[in-house]
Amino acid sequence: MTGAKRDTYTPDSLLAVAVTVFNERGYDGTSMEHLSKAAGISKSSIYHHVSGKEELLRRAVSRALDGLFGILSEEAALGGTPVRRLEYVTRRMVEVLIAELPYVTLLLRVRGNTDTERWALERRREFDHRIAELLRAAAAENQVRTDVGVRLAALLVSGMINSIVEWYRPGGGPLAERELADAVVRVVFSGVRG
Amino acid sequence: MTGAKRDTYTPDSLLAVAVTVFNERGYDGTSMEHLSKAAGISKSSIYHHVSGKEELLRRAVSRALDGLFGILSEEAALGGTPVRRLEYVTRRMVEVLIAELPYVTLLLRVRGNTDTERWALERRREFDHRIAELLRAAAAENQVRTDVGVRLAALLVSGMINSIVEWYRPGGGPLAERELADAVVRVVFSGVRG
Repeated sequence: MTGAKRDTYTPDSLLAVAVTVFNERGYDGTSMEHLSKAAGISKSSIYHHVSGKEELLRRAVSRALDGLFGILSEEAALGGTPVRRLEYVTRRMVEVLIAELPYVTLLLRVRGNTDTERWALERRREFDHRIAELLRAAAAENQVRTDVGVRLAALLVSGMINSIVEWYRPGGGPLAERELADAVVRVVFSGVRG
Repeated sequence: MTGAKRDTYTPDSLLAVAVTVFNERGYDGTSMEHLSKAAGISKSSIYHHVSGKEELLRRAVSRALDGLFGILSEEAALGGTPVRRLEYVTRRMVEVLIAELPYVTLLLRVRGNTDTERWALERRREFDHRIAELLRAAAAENQVRTDVGVRLAALLVSGMINSIVEWYRPGGGPLAERELADAVVRVVFSGVRG
């Protein structure tokens, strides 16, 4: 391919390019040609790294899902009172969203037209179920309200956190990130009334 | 067009078909051919109703925006304490989202590639600013927390409400709708801890 770069991509750096293109054009609207142009290497060079765009999607959403599910295995998510665990998980969800912003953004835009997309949606539902379980454990000990169903509360909490991808732009530094995580924890647990 | 229906569409019924297609395929991914097939009438029949797909988009997002901005002119949004007005607006946002689900869904997916899309994004931002103003008025009277910025709180509240389009499916009836609105008001104002 005339004008193509020498292919010095690693799996991670190629994935980063692909995710940017997927988020800009939508996964359905992205062709191998678009990926080739964005990466500056030929399509055959891309096929040297991956079997096709669905493999790139699978790797990208896996990275987001691994980040999110990883939270649930962290020490503070496993021990302590249910409400403390829930608070920890809420904070970490915001942190993972910020740390893996393009990957989580892509995960949240997946609509379910391919096996990989359906699998990603299923894994998202599983994650929300895990949040609902934490809420259920906290409700059983009267640490959270019981007049809102745990499944609905889990969807509302996830929805609030996920909506951050719509407007958050990196660059505020660790302090801004900490403030955002603090704000989300406050609003989720005590509401705007405080 | 062979097999085409006689064109008995009203502006509203044609809009309903277009919005369904836009939500399924994405606005960018929808051609006049797709709209013609979905409506079962020829493209020239569609052009008899509208100048093109951007006019359909503008009408559709206008319907969602009119619903949302209309809330702010309702009596209970204009009178009473700021926190009561905010509570009223929160509840009505959920109700409008449910009543105009496909239109609000489309509005929330708009990304900004055309004049109409950029205008819709600008109007959404304006709406969030109005919510932030209500929060600011409530904070000035110590009716809401002041340790989270009003702009951020407005984005989080809107984000929670907007996320409902991702999973809500109509058919639960007025009671289910009421329960959802109640739950959102509770979580927004008092959090999951209650």
